[in-house]
Amino acid sequence: MQNNSRCIVLGASGFIGSRLCEKLGEKYSNIKAFGRNPMYKDAFKKCKWIEGDFADANQIANAIGDCDTVIHLVNASTPASANINRVADLQANVVSTLNLLDACVNSGVKKVIFLSSGGTVYGVPSIIPTPEASENNPITAYGVSKLTIEKYLSLYYHLYKLDYCVLRVANPYGPYQTNKKNQGVISAFFQHAIHDEPIDVWGDGTVVRDYVFIDDVVNAIDLALTNNSPYKVFNIGSGVGISLNEIISTLEQAVGKSLAVNYLPGRNMDIPVSILDINRAKSHLNWQPLTPLHDGIIETYNWIKSSGL
Amino acid sequence: MQNNSRCIVLGASGFIGSRLCEKLGEKYSNIKAFGRNPMYKDAFKKCKWIEGDFADANQIANAIGDCDTVIHLVNASTPASANINRVADLQANVVSTLNLLDACVNSGVKKVIFLSSGGTVYGVPSIIPTPEASENNPITAYGVSKLTIEKYLSLYYHLYKLDYCVLRVANPYGPYQTNKKNQGVISAFFQHAIHDEPIDVWGDGTVVRDYVFIDDVVNAIDLALTNNSPYKVFNIGSGVGISLNEIISTLEQAVGKSLAVNYLPGRNMDIPVSILDINRAKSHLNWQPLTPLHDGIIETYNWIKSSGL
Repeated sequence: MQNNSRCIVLGASGFIGSRLCEKLGEKYSNIKAFGRNPMYKDAFKKCKWIEGDFADANQIANAIGDCDTVIHLVNASTPASANINRVADLQANVVSTLNLLDACVNSGVKKVIFLSSGGTVYGVPSIIPTPEASENNPITAYGVSKLTIEKYLSLYYHLYKLDYCVLRVANPYGPYQTNKKNQGVISAFFQHAIHDEPIDVWGDGTVVRDYVFIDDVVNAIDLALTNNSPYKVFNIGSGVGISLNEIISTLEQAVGKSLAVNYLPGRNMDIPVSILDINRAKSHLNWQPLTPLHDGIIETYNWIKSSGL
Repeated sequence: MQNNSRCIVLGASGFIGSRLCEKLGEKYSNIKAFGRNPMYKDAFKKCKWIEGDFADANQIANAIGDCDTVIHLVNASTPASANINRVADLQANVVSTLNLLDACVNSGVKKVIFLSSGGTVYGVPSIIPTPEASENNPITAYGVSKLTIEKYLSLYYHLYKLDYCVLRVANPYGPYQTNKKNQGVISAFFQHAIHDEPIDVWGDGTVVRDYVFIDDVVNAIDLALTNNSPYKVFNIGSGVGISLNEIISTLEQAVGKSLAVNYLPGRNMDIPVSILDINRAKSHLNWQPLTPLHDGIIETYNWIKSSGL
């Protein structure tokens, strides 16, 4: 990305947005960050902060008006909440994104980077590790919304030549992930461990996920800003599967004590195994994950301790 | 379908709905038809007619309350209109369908048959004839809406065991197709020919489509009512590609005179070639198209003349 181009991060105040704005702010001038009141304001000290609501089409149109590039990180729901009210999920995510895309066309935005969900857009995968061309049959409304947004991005590219790049991110973890609920198990489990609270595991802990460190995700977004490959959709993960029980024992080593685990009945929204095939990103985005799980976990643990969570 | 089960057709007053209700009404008792004021009331004389608006969730919930099976034919937009206002298209089609599916779960509906669009859900196909497992990158908002509804049907099946069958219908034609605009070119061109009006063709007439006669579509829906194959999504077409220019010369033979054609610039929503691979429906739905194009065209012409269109 050229340093004189303007880039806005939407949904900046969350986990990925905070780290992304911190890193992009160090590297580029003219980064704008749009979102709700952030928990960690220091992450945005080198960005122009704009407080606002993604659901407000006028605020969005004003915010992106002078930008070349939009990075869309907004998650107006979680996999669990989206399944409870699918209409609200669709309105908050897809309809708001359509309003955003219309505003992009109207104001001459050149490219949209969208963070999609590698863990949900495929549904129960028939191929593991799962490549981008696999069938998409999400088993959560969250996954359907993400997939629908991907399809609209493809449509706007066709209709208006609005360029785009979709990053289907696996299970990201690392500094700024603060949710104590089960989104982001590494951070959530650490917080429970520090406070000597038992952790809840749905199922028997054998579900396998693909964990990718936040700084590797940030690097993928940075590369996507300038990527000109014919591919528009990339899996971003480690390419390696780790079970929840393995995560728990790795965390136990990091904190130096056993964790109390409540094993609860499995949920029908949980896919048994999710591992992404990341060869396309390696070949065509010039990206690869650089942070070994152990190093990422230690960095996450140190950050959580220092943050007072 | 057992004759004591109740089936409702939503979007009954349109082209497919009218012929479907006429045919199902002859075969089964307890067919309900829901829709806006129909042009051809006689088509519904053996059904229970319910006037209503698909966008009204309460009306839909009341209408389906005592039904086992829902046949969802509603098109709240056309490929051209959907591209102009994508948010309205999403609201009218997808949000309303989510309300329908919630009502189905609440009232114990067992199965939903959804008529999707074989001509738009694939986008520009990489394989011709196009099988169901091909990539979906629609180049119209209409196609994105249809595809999104398919994904929600798969989700509701996963979450609630609400069974479903998606029929991706190619270009249907035949009696009750009355639109003089370019949806349904066979009927539209005939109407123009009868009134000695020139017909408009976007592009040079070489675009190839897969035309399937309405009674073959009705037969596919009838078979879907009882289909228990592991497949939930079927292409319904002729499996054969016909160019617009071939259609025009076939119509010229039928009417016994030349048609005046205005060739207009091509539209970026028109896919050059769309032909469906129908082998899955042959093998697993026990369906095949039975009406040769020439016979279907003559039957359509006779119907248009008798209807006074």
